[in-house]
Order: sequence, then C-alpha cells, then structure tokens
Amino acid sequence: MNADERWFQGHLRELDEAECWELLRSCEVGRVAYVDARGPMVVPVTFVAEDASLLFRVSAYSELARHLPGAEAALEVDDIDYFTRSGWSVVLRGPIEVVPSDELPPVDARPTPWPEGQRSLYLRLTAALVTGRRLLEA
Amino acid sequence: MNADERWFQGHLRELDEAECWELLRSCEVGRVAYVDARGPMVVPVTFVAEDASLLFRVSAYSELARHLPGAEAALEVDDIDYFTRSGWSVVLRGPIEVVPSDELPPVDARPTPWPEGQRSLYLRLTAALVTGRRLLEA
Repeated sequence: MNADERWFQGHLRELDEAECWELLRSCEVGRVAYVDARGPMVVPVTFVAEDASLLFRVSAYSELARHLPGAEAALEVDDIDYFTRSGWSVVLRGPIEVVPSDELPPVDARPTPWPEGQRSLYLRLTAALVTGRRLLEA
Repeated sequence: MNADERWFQGHLRELDEAECWELLRSCEVGRVAYVDARGPMVVPVTFVAEDASLLFRVSAYSELARHLPGAEAALEVDDIDYFTRSGWSVVLRGPIEVVPSDELPPVDARPTPWPEGQRSLYLRLTAALVTGRRLLEA
C-alpha cells in the first residue's frame, strides 16, 4: 500500500505487524467498514483482539448482521492528537464469519458491548492484511 | 437505519441532522470508508465541513485518488470516552467528486493536511444521508 494514501505522509513511520497488533490489543473500540446496498458504511464497535483475528458482537437483527457474515470488512483503530497533530491508525482487513456459540472463547475473553441490549451474534474478522502508520509530531 | 446496528443501543439518543452537522463542524479529522478491489477500506483524513458536503484532500497518486472519484463513500467522525463508556458517532454518506481548482473555496476554508507533502487533489463528499447517535453514560 502506498504510504501516500494516508493522512500522514511527512514524518511518517510505517508500523510493522507486531506493532499493529500491540495497538489493536490496546483498544476496545474500533470502526468497522462494510458494504451495503448504498455502498461503504462505517460504524463503531467494541472488539477484542485475538491471535490473528478480531472478535465483536452485533444484534442478530442489525444491519451489521445482515451485511457482514461472509463478506470482506475492515476494522480501523486510531488515536489522534489534535494538539500536536500527530497520531496513529491501524487497519485490519479480511473476511467475516459467524462464530458458533460452542466455539466462543471464555466469557472474560469476549467483547463487552457498551450499550444495553442483546448482542447475541458473535462475528470474527480474520486478518488477511494488517497495516498501520504513525504520524510523528511535525 | 436501525438504531440496533450501532455499538450504542441502551442509553441512546439519535442525533438530528443539525446536531450531526454541528459535530461534523467541530471536527478536523474523520475516517473515510471506500471500496477497492479487496473490499471496504477505511483511513483517516482531515476535512472541512461545508454547507451540505465535506471537502478533503488527497495525493493525486494515492489509492484514495484511484478509488474515490465518482464512487460512493462514507465519512465517520466520533468522540469516544473509554472512562465513561460513552460517546457519539456521525456518518455522512454520498457520492465523491473531484473539485476543480477554479471552484475551490478561499484558501482559509480549505482543509489542512497534517502531514508534509503534496495533497493536490480536492475531493468533495456530498451528503446524501447523514446519521448520528450519542451513547449516554450508563
């Protein structure tokens, strides 16, 4: 991927995959991008980073449940500092599959939705491509 | 759009369009979701909110320049508070067009890229759909 395509270009450092995973593991909220009838859409989700995948939960009757299983998706996490105009962004891309309840990790290794309500459908995004970049202070 | 599809569900308040625009105007960095050969992708960009559109800049030789013009896109902004597990998210969806230089707004109304380097291609995302939600503290 061309470094030039991101919002950070100058004092830019490409993150290696280990750094990307470390940052993914430091975050609880990301933004999942998917495609519906209108085109690309992106919404926040809480997630848990696994060895080579991300696990998150959605309502079984949601738009995410309708469009994500079996499809390609991207999940982005970032930390952006307006004051110093610096930050980092990590994107994990790959296919989404439904995780059957008997294949779920222990309860304390599952993501915790912040809102109230049922989020009974567990989805896993398996990493096909992990990229990240850090914009250093100018 | 079903309220149930977002990460905030319980103490949830749907934002009206005026509130969404107010929040968009309060932000300088968003995340643009687009589709390339692999599927959905999402990367941070700096932007400026206009009357019914968002203006941002990309390198003419970037992935964004290759995939965005003439396509549908979504731009998301949010503010997420890990401590109180609350926050908001606004998404603007619509078509992307290249803005010719003679139709650009005055220089001080253009977005400022944070990184060094040329971002000579101006893109405009015109609002076809604006949605937002706020998750109140539990």
